[in-house]
Amino acid sequence: MIHNISFIGAGKVARQLAPALNAAGHKIRQIFSRQAEKATEVAAPIGAQSIADLHQLTASADLYIVAVNDDAIPLVCEKMATVMSHNPLVVHTSGAASAEKIAPYFERYGVFYPLQTFTEKRALSFREIPLCIYANEDRDQERLLAIGHSISEKVFEIDDDQRATLHVAAVFVNNFTNHLFGIGKDILSSKNIPFEILLPLIEETAAKVQELDPTKSQTGPASRKDMTTIRKHLRLLSEFPEYQKLYHQFTIAINERLKKAVKPSN
Amino acid sequence: MIHNISFIGAGKVARQLAPALNAAGHKIRQIFSRQAEKATEVAAPIGAQSIADLHQLTASADLYIVAVNDDAIPLVCEKMATVMSHNPLVVHTSGAASAEKIAPYFERYGVFYPLQTFTEKRALSFREIPLCIYANEDRDQERLLAIGHSISEKVFEIDDDQRATLHVAAVFVNNFTNHLFGIGKDILSSKNIPFEILLPLIEETAAKVQELDPTKSQTGPASRKDMTTIRKHLRLLSEFPEYQKLYHQFTIAINERLKKAVKPSN
Repeated sequence: MIHNISFIGAGKVARQLAPALNAAGHKIRQIFSRQAEKATEVAAPIGAQSIADLHQLTASADLYIVAVNDDAIPLVCEKMATVMSHNPLVVHTSGAASAEKIAPYFERYGVFYPLQTFTEKRALSFREIPLCIYANEDRDQERLLAIGHSISEKVFEIDDDQRATLHVAAVFVNNFTNHLFGIGKDILSSKNIPFEILLPLIEETAAKVQELDPTKSQTGPASRKDMTTIRKHLRLLSEFPEYQKLYHQFTIAINERLKKAVKPSN
Repeated sequence: MIHNISFIGAGKVARQLAPALNAAGHKIRQIFSRQAEKATEVAAPIGAQSIADLHQLTASADLYIVAVNDDAIPLVCEKMATVMSHNPLVVHTSGAASAEKIAPYFERYGVFYPLQTFTEKRALSFREIPLCIYANEDRDQERLLAIGHSISEKVFEIDDDQRATLHVAAVFVNNFTNHLFGIGKDILSSKNIPFEILLPLIEETAAKVQELDPTKSQTGPASRKDMTTIRKHLRLLSEFPEYQKLYHQFTIAINERLKKAVKPSN
């Protein structure tokens, strides 16, 4: 079923989600951003109206997607409620914010959270992006699931509690992992070695976990308790006390985790 | 130029490196492993002789690749020296061990270190694997570079000191990153959420860093100092005190790192 959809926000999520929904046959009605130019950039290519004032938001849509910073969600919803009286379904796209943030302003609410890291200028195929769906009413849940399936092969029903947990896990595998990449870069810079040399290893690390359990495929000096190498590495990191500390902790943590993993079944 | 090459060791590295060298036209002479079956598995498909006793090692090769655990390198070299008198070039494939470990036993020595994580049953294309080359003599260095180029597009001259640094950096971006994937899995398990839901995010995290500087593409609550989300996440991690501690440290570290990165140029 085709839906009429409007976006509040023209940031990284809206920029990719709006064209994907448009390509799936949905009609994108309005794109709001306080920065008129940003709204137009998203709206123009998909035949939507761009607006820079929330008072211009019309009742033309049956689904309103609030894709703004977490902190702005209640403010935006409050303003929206003053201009709309047609009882629409309103969802946000946040991993961290509760769906209940919308509840004071709209009867029908939910979440449409794409679990991915979006970057300006990196177009991603939505077919492979997991969508975490929730609505407070069953019929709306069905609607959102159908919309989700129209753009992605990976649609999950995820409640507030689960989504919060998912978001923490995402921080570990994305934000923290990226920080480790940064550390790798810093360490190499100190010896004038180009970061590029690590890229195939990084690629394979992520490719491997697509097929193999990360516990089973854990390798390295920590997992094999190679004290000679561990001591050598800690010594080498003496000019980076913070990274030395982190190395120490990871070494202990990897051992602890592998010990626990072996206990129950083997 | 075609080389005659023998392998001491039939583990994860030899299993992938020997066929790659064979495919590039080199003649693989002998494969040694104390486990005869393992040696045969590697040797048979590429027409090499498999041996389970180092005394059977012949002078048929001009390059001997020692692909064994770091600790075993000196022992293996000592034994090899007793049976070979033709002054061959002997290299190991370790990221952590010094090339000098071979020096007491052979005049011509070096390193042929493929910077990648090797997994049983995951065949990788060597063309994309960075090879770190070192030899104590210039002519041998040239030889190893040529052999490297025959199988990979990414060949680097890396001395002992640089290789040690590279190995530490590899531990951060591979071993520690994989541990973060394991943490992500543990966190999701606690709420019965399948780990699969994180896989596209992991894939994109690694894909992004192939093109973008990890400092510039750092996202998440830590990088934007989103205290509401950080506090929520720390609370959610209360059943995992170790992961809570790690979350706390990464949050501080990401901020520190971004601060430093901004200072010099912006």
